Amino acid sequence: MRDQWPYLASAPRANVVEGPGVIAERQMMTTVRNQLPPVVPLPRLSRRLRIGMVAPAWFAVPPAGYGGIERVVSVLTEGLVAAGHDVTLFAAAGSRTDARLVTPLQSPPPLGDLASMTDDLVHCTTAFLRADEFDIIHDHTGMGPALGALLNGCTPVVHTLHGPWTAPGRRLLALTDERVHAVAISRAQRAGNPQLHCAGVVYNGIDVAAHPFRRVKEDFLLFVGRISAEKRPEEAIEVARRAKLPLVMVIKRNEPAERAYFDEVVAPHLGDDVVVLDQPSHEVKVDLMGRARALVFPIDWPEPFGLVMTEAMACGTPVITRPLGAAPEIVTDGVTGFLCSTKGEMVDAVTAAAELRPEDCRFRVEKLFSAQAMVAGYESVYHAALVSSRRTDYQGPRQRIAELA
Amino acid sequence: MRDQWPYLASAPRANVVEGPGVIAERQMMTTVRNQLPPVVPLPRLSRRLRIGMVAPAWFAVPPAGYGGIERVVSVLTEGLVAAGHDVTLFAAAGSRTDARLVTPLQSPPPLGDLASMTDDLVHCTTAFLRADEFDIIHDHTGMGPALGALLNGCTPVVHTLHGPWTAPGRRLLALTDERVHAVAISRAQRAGNPQLHCAGVVYNGIDVAAHPFRRVKEDFLLFVGRISAEKRPEEAIEVARRAKLPLVMVIKRNEPAERAYFDEVVAPHLGDDVVVLDQPSHEVKVDLMGRARALVFPIDWPEPFGLVMTEAMACGTPVITRPLGAAPEIVTDGVTGFLCSTKGEMVDAVTAAAELRPEDCRFRVEKLFSAQAMVAGYESVYHAALVSSRRTDYQGPRQRIAELA
Repeated sequence: MRDQWPYLASAPRANVVEGPGVIAERQMMTTVRNQLPPVVPLPRLSRRLRIGMVAPAWFAVPPAGYGGIERVVSVLTEGLVAAGHDVTLFAAAGSRTDARLVTPLQSPPPLGDLASMTDDLVHCTTAFLRADEFDIIHDHTGMGPALGALLNGCTPVVHTLHGPWTAPGRRLLALTDERVHAVAISRAQRAGNPQLHCAGVVYNGIDVAAHPFRRVKEDFLLFVGRISAEKRPEEAIEVARRAKLPLVMVIKRNEPAERAYFDEVVAPHLGDDVVVLDQPSHEVKVDLMGRARALVFPIDWPEPFGLVMTEAMACGTPVITRPLGAAPEIVTDGVTGFLCSTKGEMVDAVTAAAELRPEDCRFRVEKLFSAQAMVAGYESVYHAALVSSRRTDYQGPRQRIAELA
Repeated sequence: MRDQWPYLASAPRANVVEGPGVIAERQMMTTVRNQLPPVVPLPRLSRRLRIGMVAPAWFAVPPAGYGGIERVVSVLTEGLVAAGHDVTLFAAAGSRTDARLVTPLQSPPPLGDLASMTDDLVHCTTAFLRADEFDIIHDHTGMGPALGALLNGCTPVVHTLHGPWTAPGRRLLALTDERVHAVAISRAQRAGNPQLHCAGVVYNGIDVAAHPFRRVKEDFLLFVGRISAEKRPEEAIEVARRAKLPLVMVIKRNEPAERAYFDEVVAPHLGDDVVVLDQPSHEVKVDLMGRARALVFPIDWPEPFGLVMTEAMACGTPVITRPLGAAPEIVTDGVTGFLCSTKGEMVDAVTAAAELRPEDCRFRVEKLFSAQAMVAGYESVYHAALVSSRRTDYQGPRQRIAELA
C-alpha cells in the first residue's frame, strides 16, 4: 500500500492497538476493496476517443460555489483530456477546461422557472445535434436520455444517473433503456431501480491533489452540506454537543426552502459551540476538513453518492454517518469512519474516530474515488458501449472501432 | 356564395344600405379572400398518410374546459381521419378520438412544477421513438422541435407554433430550423420571426357545425377569454357601459395570476349590467355567441391567432377588437367586425356592428377557419415536407412517396 503512496511512506503509524477485532476489520476492508472495482476492466482502447461531454445548463464547470454534478464533470473532463482523449465540453458560460468548450447559451436559464425548460432544451440539443462529430456522447443532464435515445444508430450515449430515483425519472429511463447506456454512481443507486439495464457503476471521483492530507487532528467536528431535512444539520449539532466538542458547519442555504429550514429547524439549536460558514472558499473548506476530528454526516435519506464524504476522507478525516444509500460503499465501518444507526452511536463514534488511521481514509479515496479511478471506470463503459450496441443497423461506431483496433 | 351554403339560401338579407363604401368594403373582402389561401395548394396525395399527431401532455384532446391547442388538435385529428388518413394521436389520458389513441402517461404531469419536465419528456419521446411507423409526425408540444430535429433522416416533422414568440423559443427554433418544418398559425405570428424558414401558414380551424348560426341578435355584448392583462376584460366592461348595453363575460380564472387580476382589476368595475360566467359548457357559450350583438375582444398584445373570434363569427356574430397580432387576418374591418384603435372607436363600433351581415361572418369562417380549411392546409404542408426534405441521406419518406405516387 505504501509503495503506491510514497510521500506517506515515512509517516508514523497511528497509535492503535491492533486487537483481533481491528485486524478482522482490516481484512474485511481488503475484501471490500477487492470486491469494488467500479466496472469490470476491459482492454483499453489504443487510440483516443472523440467524446462529447454534456454538462447541465445552469452552473459553470467547475462551479463557482455549490454544484456537485458540475464538479464531477470537471474532474472527469480534465482527467479524460489528460489521458489523451479529444473532449468537447458543452457547459454553461464561464466554464473553464482544457477540453474544447462549447457554451450554447450566453447566460444560464432562470432557476426554478418552468420557462427555463426551453433554454435547457437549446443547451442539450446543441450537443446532441453534433453527435456525428463524436465516438461517444457522455450526458449528465435531465433531458439527455430522451435526446440520446432519438440518436438511435448514430453515436452511443452514456448517461450518468446523478440524482435520487423519482417516479418520472424511472418512467423516462424505462423508455430509453434500450438505447442509452445508463451508469449508476453507486451500487445502492443501481439497486434502487433493478428494472434498469445499467451499463455499470462508476463512483464519482475527486481531485485528490486539491484535498491536502493532514495527519494531526484538532478537537472539533465538521458538518458540510446544504440545509435540508435530508442532511439533518440539526442532528450534527446535537451529536457534537453530546460529544462535548465544538462544531463547524459549512452550509449552503440560498434557496427559499433551505433558508426556511435553517430559520425554523437549525437556528434554535445554535450556540457558542457552533460556527456557521456559508459557502466558504474551497481552501477554507479543505483546511477545515483536514483539521477536524471527524465529519459528522447524519443523512436521513438514501444519498446516491455523497461527494463530501470522499473529500473529508481524502483529507485524512473519518466520516460519521448512517448506513443509508451509498454511505456503506464509501465508508468502511470502523476503518475510515462509522456507520451509526442512532444518535447515541454517533456520539460514541466521535471518541472512537480518534483511533482511526488518517492514511486509511486517504488510501481508500486514492483507490476508489479519485479522478484516475473515475476516468478508468468511464473508459471501460465507453468501450463496452461502443462494442455492445444493440442496434442491428448500427454502422458508424463499429467502423470507428475497426479504425481504433 | 349561397350556392355553397344552401341552408341559408332562403334567409332574409340584412337591412343594410349598400352605399359605395360598403360595396368597396365587400370588394376588399373578396380581394382579401383571394389573397388568403393559408398555403399554396399542392397536388393531393393519392393515398392516405400514416400520421403521428403529438398533443401536449397536460390536457385531454378535446379538453374538458379551457385548452385552445387541444381543441385545435382534436378538430385537426378528426378531420384528417375523416379525410381517410391513418392517424395515431399521442395525448393525455381521457382523450377521445376516432384516430388510434396512445396515452403515454397514466395521469398528466403536475401543472407549473419544474419536475413535470421529465414526464413531459416521457410523453413526447414516446411518440418520437415510434417515428418509423409514420410518414409524418405533426407535433404541437414545446419539446417537439428538439426531439424532431434529432430524428434527422427518419421521418419529417411538422411543428405548429401555437404560442407567442419568446427569446428561448426563438433560440430553440433557430437551432432546429433546418430539420423541422415549422408552421405558423397566422401571418402576424410568422412576421414576428422573419429569421425562421416557415413551412407555411395554416390558420386554426374550428368545428363550424358545433357553432350554430343565428341571424337575430339581442341587445347585449359578449366577452370571452381568460382573465389577464393581455385580454383586457376591464376594457370590455367600460366599452359595454359606455355603449349602454349589458355585458356577459365568459371567463377562465383558475390560475393564481388570473384570480389576482380578477380581484384587483376586474372586480371593482362589476355592476348590475355585467354577468360573469366561469367556464360554462360549450352549449351555453355558443348560445351566447349566437345571441350577442357583438363579441368585444379588446386585446392588448399580439394575439397569435384568437380562436374565440372565429367561434363568434361562426355563430354569425361580428367581432370588435384591436388591430393587433392576427386580428386583422381574422376580422375584415367593416364586414365581419371592426378593428378599433381606441375605446371610443370600440363604443362607436357597437352601434355599427348591428349593420353588419351575420352571413358574412359565417361565410368567412367556413372558407378560412373551418376544420376542412385547416385539414387541406396541413395536407399541403405534409406533402411539401415529404417532397422537400433537405437531407441528402434521406431515404424512407422518398420511398414512401414513390409508393404513394
